[in-house]
Amino acid sequence: MTALRVLGIDCGTTSTGYGVIESDGQKERVLDFGVIRASPRLTLPKRLRYIHQQVEKLLKRFAPDAVAIEEVFLAANVKSLRQMSQVRGVVLLAAERFHRPVRAYSATTVKKSVLHGGAEKHQVRHMVQRLLALPELPEPPDAADALAVALCHIRHDQVERNLASLGS
Amino acid sequence: MTALRVLGIDCGTTSTGYGVIESDGQKERVLDFGVIRASPRLTLPKRLRYIHQQVEKLLKRFAPDAVAIEEVFLAANVKSLRQMSQVRGVVLLAAERFHRPVRAYSATTVKKSVLHGGAEKHQVRHMVQRLLALPELPEPPDAADALAVALCHIRHDQVERNLASLGS
Repeated sequence: MTALRVLGIDCGTTSTGYGVIESDGQKERVLDFGVIRASPRLTLPKRLRYIHQQVEKLLKRFAPDAVAIEEVFLAANVKSLRQMSQVRGVVLLAAERFHRPVRAYSATTVKKSVLHGGAEKHQVRHMVQRLLALPELPEPPDAADALAVALCHIRHDQVERNLASLGS
Repeated sequence: MTALRVLGIDCGTTSTGYGVIESDGQKERVLDFGVIRASPRLTLPKRLRYIHQQVEKLLKRFAPDAVAIEEVFLAANVKSLRQMSQVRGVVLLAAERFHRPVRAYSATTVKKSVLHGGAEKHQVRHMVQRLLALPELPEPPDAADALAVALCHIRHDQVERNLASLGS
């Protein structure tokens, strides 16, 4: 089984979560997670540039095979949808500049890939901790969401590989 | 009166309009206008990269004093708001990388700055043609919208300078 390294990104309006997971096909290992916080005192273009630079640093440092990101379908309001999408734009640009493929998953798909049916959104962090055998709850929540989308991609990728091997 | 050169950008989902106007404080001169079209056959990250590169080329070629852009408050639907905002993100990033200040105006403010009360949105192109003494109607409409937002900034800048000189 080939190893797969994924950078998950959770585009937020005030902080952008990230999580790096590597899988050997048997189990997953967390390499890093955290958040990129751009000071709200900066102008919007400066914040976008900062986020873009930090994502490029992560791409350089971890050389992931893919970037996993959530589709932004809904947000609390139009302003927040606009802001999240602007951040998403510079994240996608960074991935493209490093020639990394991007896989987007809906929030529902991410949730389903880490939770059992009927579980609540706030349980994502607990499941991420358990599935990735982290010693503590991943903090802050944006980082846990980024780990969740990275894990979601790893599982989808495994299913695809299994299907491909059945077909060959 | 100092000359002012403005790059107006109209972030669209399929094409991004641009217009470059220079003002000597007395009259305005159009230096260039057109649209950046990223093939819909490209992936979203590739399209964003292409738009980002083209905007950087314009910034390099014209070295504008400012970039003028519309606020995206509303769009036909959530998908289009999301796409426009993603494009806006990479445009703002390009401006910041070239250390150009960005001024954002609402669609209403842009319309008011080129039209008389009660006029319709589709008349913007005609007014842009007349105000900028263009030999033909600016084509396509996205380019006309970009010229309109650039013109809007030039007029707001003049008012601000006049107010500043009154105060000094």
